[in-house]
This record gives sequence, structure tokens and C-alpha cells, in this order.
Amino acid sequence: MDDNLMEKVMEEVMKKMGDTKEVKKEAPKSSYNPGITEFVGTAIGDTIGLVIANVDHNLHGFMKIDPKYKSIGIIGARTGAGPHIMAADEAVKATNTEIISIELPRDTKGGAGHGCLILFGAEDVSDARRAVEVSLKELDRTFGDVYGNNAGHIELQYTARASYACNKAWGAPVGKAFGLIVGAPAAIGVVIADAAVKSANVDIVTYASPSTTSYTNEAILFISGDSGAVRQAVVAARDLGIRLLEALGQEPAPSSTTPYI
Amino acid sequence: MDDNLMEKVMEEVMKKMGDTKEVKKEAPKSSYNPGITEFVGTAIGDTIGLVIANVDHNLHGFMKIDPKYKSIGIIGARTGAGPHIMAADEAVKATNTEIISIELPRDTKGGAGHGCLILFGAEDVSDARRAVEVSLKELDRTFGDVYGNNAGHIELQYTARASYACNKAWGAPVGKAFGLIVGAPAAIGVVIADAAVKSANVDIVTYASPSTTSYTNEAILFISGDSGAVRQAVVAARDLGIRLLEALGQEPAPSSTTPYI
Amino acid sequence: MDDNLMEKVMEEVMKKMGDTKEVKKEAPKSSYNPGITEFVGTAIGDTIGLVIANVDHNLHGFMKIDPKYKSIGIIGARTGAGPHIMAADEAVKATNTEIISIELPRDTKGGAGHGCLILFGAEDVSDARRAVEVSLKELDRTFGDVYGNNAGHIELQYTARASYACNKAWGAPVGKAFGLIVGAPAAIGVVIADAAVKSANVDIVTYASPSTTSYTNEAILFISGDSGAVRQAVVAARDLGIRLLEALGQEPAPSSTTPYI
Repeated sequence: MDDNLMEKVMEEVMKKMGDTKEVKKEAPKSSYNPGITEFVGTAIGDTIGLVIANVDHNLHGFMKIDPKYKSIGIIGARTGAGPHIMAADEAVKATNTEIISIELPRDTKGGAGHGCLILFGAEDVSDARRAVEVSLKELDRTFGDVYGNNAGHIELQYTARASYACNKAWGAPVGKAFGLIVGAPAAIGVVIADAAVKSANVDIVTYASPSTTSYTNEAILFISGDSGAVRQAVVAARDLGIRLLEALGQEPAPSSTTPYI
Repeated sequence: MDDNLMEKVMEEVMKKMGDTKEVKKEAPKSSYNPGITEFVGTAIGDTIGLVIANVDHNLHGFMKIDPKYKSIGIIGARTGAGPHIMAADEAVKATNTEIISIELPRDTKGGAGHGCLILFGAEDVSDARRAVEVSLKELDRTFGDVYGNNAGHIELQYTARASYACNKAWGAPVGKAFGLIVGAPAAIGVVIADAAVKSANVDIVTYASPSTTSYTNEAILFISGDSGAVRQAVVAARDLGIRLLEALGQEPAPSSTTPYI
Repeated sequence: MDDNLMEKVMEEVMKKMGDTKEVKKEAPKSSYNPGITEFVGTAIGDTIGLVIANVDHNLHGFMKIDPKYKSIGIIGARTGAGPHIMAADEAVKATNTEIISIELPRDTKGGAGHGCLILFGAEDVSDARRAVEVSLKELDRTFGDVYGNNAGHIELQYTARASYACNKAWGAPVGKAFGLIVGAPAAIGVVIADAAVKSANVDIVTYASPSTTSYTNEAILFISGDSGAVRQAVVAARDLGIRLLEALGQEPAPSSTTPYI
């Protein structure tokens, strides 16, 4: 069988296999609009952005939302909570909205971490929609320092000035530099948390582990302080975390998009 | 290479690939009996039905089961809780059993939802066995309005007359029409819950979200009221939910079996 | 197209497919050292063993570790908690360390069970490292009676003399024979727990189900007593459990390594 023939066969086969594998891969998320009023868009991590102009009065009560927020913006995802909360943090800075609630399911489609459900409250629907749009747009950036392979993931986040989403979710002091260090499996998280605080003079906001999260397999460190120090601590954790994850998984642990820190 | 040859190669290759993929697909669940007294049968969702004629006295205490129930029927599944609770609801109507407990693990084999462990209590083993048999039989129907794709799932349930399983699990008023609306990721659940209560005059029994479930990535609405109104609300949620799930997953979200509502 | 040709094509195709499938399979875990001080080794179950010689003083406080343990040994895994706790039990017997904490995330990479995060405390780093090394080495054995297929898993553990890890995690009486019986989905766990206590005269230490674990889909029985009786009960549960799991999954449920009980 000549090489040309073999190549042709392989091409055909791979095309067919590609078709079946496509289903398992995350579908490319162009923000296609299905023509539904509530739909705003989609993004990486099986993220969907939605808006409700006037939440039903009764449901409003059961959801325990402050009555003044007639309109809500919604960010929900299967994979990721950190990237979404950081994105929402930019959204509340940029719009006339408040964070109503942040919930953290145990998800990531079989991975070790969280999904999320974030609600923005607004008096006007255009503000709620804008907050969702800003969040969706930020996600490509905030997924930049999420590194993963078959064994787990590490996630780093950094902001020079934390706002109300970081405060609501993690108790970050508003207006100060803030960093997030996640390692999964949790054992890696413990070691990179230790490396982070040893590498720079930062304040620990809090430490979380499986028994204090949604039973995710993550250890998480939240730090605050001088912006240079926070960044340095996050970078130290990242460098060690990637190496440990690669040692465990015995394969590279690349960024989900493009690193930003 | 002529087309005939290519076709033959593809056929062979696909057959081989089919073999390897088969493992990942759910095995066909004919109710094959392994010759174990406790075994009743299996069903969709990696569901197993079991019965214990006389629960060991000591274990009975540790399981905190009312001593009068010597016999227990057991329904357990990796995927699905709603379909199983609806099925159990029919089973308690049809047999001389009571629901002892309903527990909701965080499962679905990497999906966004629950598995379940349902125990029926009976004074006589034949009643316990019968309850399990009825439940297993109902599951094909109650999985009918579970729609899923790579991005998540939505689930709808409706009964004209709720019984003790719906009451135990969800506080449904016994004897009244009852509906269940689930969306995963939870963001979709919020929007279809709102659409449901706006579409018909129904009573909200309760609303659940990741922080009040087993950290599943679902928002869930439980409704009660006039049977026509409950059905109408459920159908409105279903129509919107399927479209949103398809917009997020960019592929169809078909029924697991055959819709029944 | 002659058979020879077909075979050659299939070989090529399978090779290519093998490449892509390899990613999903667990990478072979030779204890390759990435040259990081904290790294001790890896093992089955996406397990990583790590050590911190001097935990940062501030982090120490946030982790609520007794100040006398300057050094900590860390065992973390995506899949398995029972095998790791049993391994840690041997490690505390063999070294001058104590168990600081055992946390049980909801993990197993889409499976029905737990992952783990186990911390050993030591005054000297060589003790902490030794405890991690012993644990990693024990894992091949303690995974021996973990049986799994597409439908779930069962896990059995047995020790003639429980030590402090079994005590910390499960309340096992120190110095007595101890057994662990896990079935997933939980329905199988209930039935094999009942079979175990009926087969021999053992004491129930406790019983756990989804609502009292990290929402895993497992029912778990912990037993203690005469070593012959505990072993007999565990073996009875194992024999029934494997048959039920195979009936549900309609495929064999082999041991993860080599049975030891």
C-alpha cells in the first residue's frame, strides 16, 4: 500500500473520528443568539449569560432577592468560579449593578473544582445586561492563568484593586490588591499556598480546603496587600504549581487561554 | 483508491472504534438476574433495584429506620433523582409501603446533577419488592422529559396528584397537582423558573439552588396548584429550557426516552 | 483489498487513535522527581505525596495546625480516600508522626466517590517525609480490594490492628481489628453492609450514606471486633458486592491492583 493511499485513508478516518470527538470537546462558543430575550451570550467554560428584565414577584421572594432589584443579570458556568468572579468584579466596577449572590456548585464536568451561579441586581434591565456582557468579555482574560492537565488544575488570579464581587465571594478588602491561588488536587494547593506567602510580604485573607468549600478537591489561598507583593506571591505559586501538576500528570499543564498575570 | 475500498476500510475502522466507544456508553439494561435474592432489576440511569427481606437488627438502628419496617426496598442510581422520586411516588400509591428516606448524592457521572438512594419500608418483603418493581418500570416514562447535551440538562416532571415520595423529598402537597422544573447549569434553571411562574397561575412550593442542594449545578423550582396551570407552567419552562441548552451546547438536547408531559 | 493491507491500515489507525486515547487513561506513575524540594512521589489514583519542612507561620494559623508541628507531610489524591487512609494508618504506625487532618473532597474524576487530603504532622521534616513515603508505597496494596466498572465501585479494607488514621477518619477503636465496606451506587452499599453484619459477629462502628458523607454516591459500613469475624464480614460483602456491580454494569468489575484481604 503506497504512502499516498495510506495518507488518504488516515485523512478520511481522522475526519470521521474528528466528527465524533467534536461532541466531547467544548463546542466553539461564538456568541450565537437563539432569539430569546433573556439570552445574552456564551463563553469559555460552558458559561452562559442571561438577563431577566422583571423577575416574577413571587419567585423574587423565594430567591430572597432585595425587592429593589427588579432586573437581574445571570452568569452561570459548568467549569470555573474564580475566572467568573474576577470577571464579575470588573463588571460591577463598570456598571450600575450590585452582586446579589454568588453560589458555587461542585462541578467542572468531572474535574476537581467548582462551577458557578452569579446574580447581578439592577434597577434597570440595561444595566443588568451590560454587567453580563462585560463579564462574558472578561472571561477570556480571567481564564488565562488557569492551567490544567489530566491530573488536575491550578488557578491564579490577580487584581490591583478588588471590588464588590471579590469582596462578596471571598471577603477581599475593597480597593486593595488581591490574589487568588488554587491548586487541585488539594495537596498541590497546600504546597503552593505555602510557597506564595513565603515569597512576599502579603496578608492572608483566608484559606479554604475541601471541608470548607463545596467539597471540591482544591486548597485555596486568598491574599491581599501591596500590589507588587501580591503579584509576586501569585507568580511564585504559579511557577511551582505548574511543575507539580506536570509531575503528577506526566504531561504539560498549559494555560486555558493566554496568561495575564 | 476506489470508493468501494474506502468504504470498506471505513466500515472496518468504525466497527473497531464502535467497540471501544461502547464501553463509555451506558450498557443496555435488560433486567438480567444474577441469581441474588436481593436483586430486583436495573433500569436507565445506572439504576439498581434491590430488596432486603429482614434488615439486620443492629444495622437497622444505625440506619435510623423505624423498627416496624423489617423489609426495605431500595432504588439507587448514578444519574437522576427527579425521575426516581416520581417513579417512587407511583410505587407508594400502588403498594403497601412507605418512603423511609430519600438521599441525594452529587453524581450523574461527571454531569451537573444528582444521583439518588431511595428506601421503601414495608412489613412484608413482597410489598417492598413490588414497590421496587413498580419504580423500575416507571423510570422509562419519568426520564421522558429529561433533556441533555454536552452543556447540561433540563428536567421536567408533572403529576396530577402528588403522593408521599414527592412530599417527602420536596414538600409537595399530597393529592394536588405538582410540577418540577430543573435547569443545569443553574443559570438556565433560574430563567426557566421565572418563565414558568409567569406563564400560569401556580403556587411556588420552594426554590432550590446550588447552596441548598448537594452542591449540584442546578436551579430547581417546585410548583403546585391547579393541574392545568401546573402543566402549562412546566411546558413553558421546557420549551425555553431546551432552546437555551441548545444555544449553550450548540447541539440538540434530545429527550432521554420519550416525553410524557 | 487483501487482509494484509487491511491489517496494516487498522494498525496505523489504531496507533493514531491510541495516541488520542492515551490522554484519557491514567498516565503511568513512575515516581519521577521533578527536582522540587517539596515533592516526594506519586502513586495510583492521581495521588501525590509532598512535604513542607517549615510551614509558613501565618499560614499555619489559618490552617489551624498545632504549632508544634513545624513540618507537614501531605498525601492528596483525585481518586480514593479509603486506600489512602489505610496507607496513612500504616505510616503513623511506622513513623514518629501524627495525623493532623483528613479531608474528603467529592471527587474520583466523575466517579461516585471521594478524593482525599491527608496531613501528617511532625517535629522533624525527615519524619514527615518518611510518613509520606510509607503511604505512597502502601497504596498498591490498599487499592487491591477496590473493584470497579462503568456502573460504580465497591471497596473493602481490613486491618488486624487499627491505628490513628483509621481512628481520626472513622472513629475506629485503636488496636482492634477494623473493616471498611463501601458500595457505590449507595444502593449496593446498603445491601452489602447488611450481608456483612449477618455473616459474622462484628460491632458496627458507624454507617454513612450520601447525606452524611461529602454527598458521594456511597453507603459505607465501618466494623470492628474479633479479627477473624471482621475479615469474614468484609469478604462476604465483597463477594456479593462484585456480583451486584457486575449485574448493574453488565461487565466485569476487576480489582484495581491485586486483592489483599
